[in-house]
Amino acid sequence: MSERRQVNLGVDDIPHQWYNIIPDLPEPLPPPKDPEEGESRLGNLPKMMIGECLKQEMSAENWIDIPDGIRELYSQAGRPRPLFRALNLEKRLDTPAKLYFKSEFFSPTGSHKVNTALAQCWYAKQQGFERVTTETGAGQWGTALSYASAVTGLKCTVFWVRSVYNWKQDRLTFMELLGAKVYASPSPMTEFGKTLYDKNPENVGSLGIAISEGLEDSFKDPKATYCLGSVLNHVLIHQSVIGLETQKQFEIFDDYPDIVISCLGGGSNFGGFALPFVGDVLKKGKKIKFIAAQSQVAPNLQGEYRFDFADYAEKTPLLKMYTLGHKIDMEPIKGDGLRYHGCSPILSLLRNKGYIDTIAYPSDEKHVFETSKIFMEAEGWLPAPESAYSVCCAIEEALKCKESGEKKVIAFNVSGHGFLDIPGFRVVLGL
Amino acid sequence: MSERRQVNLGVDDIPHQWYNIIPDLPEPLPPPKDPEEGESRLGNLPKMMIGECLKQEMSAENWIDIPDGIRELYSQAGRPRPLFRALNLEKRLDTPAKLYFKSEFFSPTGSHKVNTALAQCWYAKQQGFERVTTETGAGQWGTALSYASAVTGLKCTVFWVRSVYNWKQDRLTFMELLGAKVYASPSPMTEFGKTLYDKNPENVGSLGIAISEGLEDSFKDPKATYCLGSVLNHVLIHQSVIGLETQKQFEIFDDYPDIVISCLGGGSNFGGFALPFVGDVLKKGKKIKFIAAQSQVAPNLQGEYRFDFADYAEKTPLLKMYTLGHKIDMEPIKGDGLRYHGCSPILSLLRNKGYIDTIAYPSDEKHVFETSKIFMEAEGWLPAPESAYSVCCAIEEALKCKESGEKKVIAFNVSGHGFLDIPGFRVVLGL
Repeated sequence: MSERRQVNLGVDDIPHQWYNIIPDLPEPLPPPKDPEEGESRLGNLPKMMIGECLKQEMSAENWIDIPDGIRELYSQAGRPRPLFRALNLEKRLDTPAKLYFKSEFFSPTGSHKVNTALAQCWYAKQQGFERVTTETGAGQWGTALSYASAVTGLKCTVFWVRSVYNWKQDRLTFMELLGAKVYASPSPMTEFGKTLYDKNPENVGSLGIAISEGLEDSFKDPKATYCLGSVLNHVLIHQSVIGLETQKQFEIFDDYPDIVISCLGGGSNFGGFALPFVGDVLKKGKKIKFIAAQSQVAPNLQGEYRFDFADYAEKTPLLKMYTLGHKIDMEPIKGDGLRYHGCSPILSLLRNKGYIDTIAYPSDEKHVFETSKIFMEAEGWLPAPESAYSVCCAIEEALKCKESGEKKVIAFNVSGHGFLDIPGFRVVLGL
Repeated sequence: MSERRQVNLGVDDIPHQWYNIIPDLPEPLPPPKDPEEGESRLGNLPKMMIGECLKQEMSAENWIDIPDGIRELYSQAGRPRPLFRALNLEKRLDTPAKLYFKSEFFSPTGSHKVNTALAQCWYAKQQGFERVTTETGAGQWGTALSYASAVTGLKCTVFWVRSVYNWKQDRLTFMELLGAKVYASPSPMTEFGKTLYDKNPENVGSLGIAISEGLEDSFKDPKATYCLGSVLNHVLIHQSVIGLETQKQFEIFDDYPDIVISCLGGGSNFGGFALPFVGDVLKKGKKIKFIAAQSQVAPNLQGEYRFDFADYAEKTPLLKMYTLGHKIDMEPIKGDGLRYHGCSPILSLLRNKGYIDTIAYPSDEKHVFETSKIFMEAEGWLPAPESAYSVCCAIEEALKCKESGEKKVIAFNVSGHGFLDIPGFRVVLGL
């Protein structure tokens, strides 16, 4: 073959350890804290989180062993996933830049979310739980937890932001095929949800509200535990397999990125993809520009860096993060996974220290979807609406290289596929 | 890891040659012929087919070199694809059988059809064509050709059986995102289609009718060529990458199948998966049971073995094959890719000589979808409706082993994913 377009790895190359950036951070990560008034949320953490995940949340270890059982689940889910060189796209853009993308869309549920869902379900099962509860926005996380609970033998309850639940009927069916119970949120199934639902049964909901419902549901059932798909440290730790595989694949390509890009809502795919490379910057003196692609409806990295709740109903501890405020109302968008008020504390600290740039795209999403259509036509892969932000940002950086003549190496993550989100493309692009 | 659940291969393991079974067949394959009356169809073949494909159609070579350009396209499309061991499913069924499945669903368009679409578009481009035309049933082939034409820089026109076109709006959008022009068939765009369309604009159509329209459209445009996604020898040759990869993966698993299963409409995924193993039977004395999973609406392998047209309007030559008659009306089903009147001549000959068994499942599809839901829950992958027939058949064979206590090794192909076909599952399973 003239030029290499793809590197895959074997099952034995699935990382044996997750990467935990906390000990490498330029300054200590501010721990979560309780608000000055009201009951202790920190005291609730052991009820809110799987024991092993709580341990990882606080871990000062740089590398955390991945249990064999979880590596086996990763292999069952098709890991490792290929790293592609987007040669057609480079030609189409006529750019001197080199473009590489990671294929997290090669996933049973269509996104990177399975990487932490499988780990959390495996640990939950070990701890004797029989059911997991959660919230979901775009639906990728809810689907991933439905999948992971099915293959590990747990029951699963999902509270789904109503604005998205209403238009993603196929994704709902998929979760049901996997055996999950799914409710539109705010729902009448929880006390907190009922207060909002009774006022307005058409309340479009938000991730913050749905988190509150998932937590309340698990608090009431000793056999159930809550799982969160983003924001928290242990989630980013589990997701580090994305970046670790990508580093190994870049070695085989004999190349290394100058720019690392992904979309960012709460930060799980961005963190999983970028943090191993941030580690290279912090420890090996590498120079990389990191860009988080966001929506103008939730440009949380352009918010305030302060302590805030992770959920609407204030059941979580306060986290030091970039936030738009946990009570903010955000307009629905098709890339709904990006619609969250705060950014993961780890990524927020790195942003605050100047390691991460951000760009926020207009909320009508036309520019994002039209730009990512160039990628679809050239490379043939259908990104999820959220991943389209990552694709759009990568194309813009490649076009800047065209102007400047710079031969930069651009790596971007395609965190999921859009097979279940096609109506969104149809509506926005007017097809 | 305790037990190996998956084997993947690297890009360098993409086969360098396709396998052509024709010289190994137990007796010579009857060549296509002209009907006794009317104009010569054989004379039309060079107009109907890409030159290199026509050459392959007649080739007596056992191994045909895969051009570097096509291997590069295969790598761009994510090949090789993993072979999975279905350990969860084995446990769930409590069977002594071992179950392995090939993941053709790891495809840009969701099915194995890209394997020949990419080859045909690459050859068409080499020959100077600017546009490809085709028909599609389930939509998998039309999507694959839309994809392949996009990444090779060709235009694409698809005639889509109306009964499926009507309920797969998302797949239609996907083809349009890839830049294809798509018409419900019978359409008013061709003379033949118009005769049927004018009588009844709601005519549900058939693959045979859509083939006739695709052919007519290409005949009228010297810059266009027609592509067929199944039945013909060159298609099965291109698809042999599936079985060749699987053989290499079985070596790494240190195992070998006793039973090889896939669904069968025209025969392309069945042939691609099974024929390299049939070669082992014919040349190496291996003993394997081959089973084609079909629908009772189109049990073509239970039809007559005789010469018949491949299309409704009798524009193709006569092929010696198992057929239900090219004018048969077939009830619509969700696994519409199986709804074709004839089976590939190569597979028909092997069936006639006793090498291939067949089973046909009831047309309400409840049994097939309910059985394949066990696979979804255990392994977490969502098969296409057609692939669900393969899954169902594999589960039934595994349950027979449970009764008999036999430790058989069962290999089945999951030819595509069902992300764009979820409404079919919802309707049939009443979700």
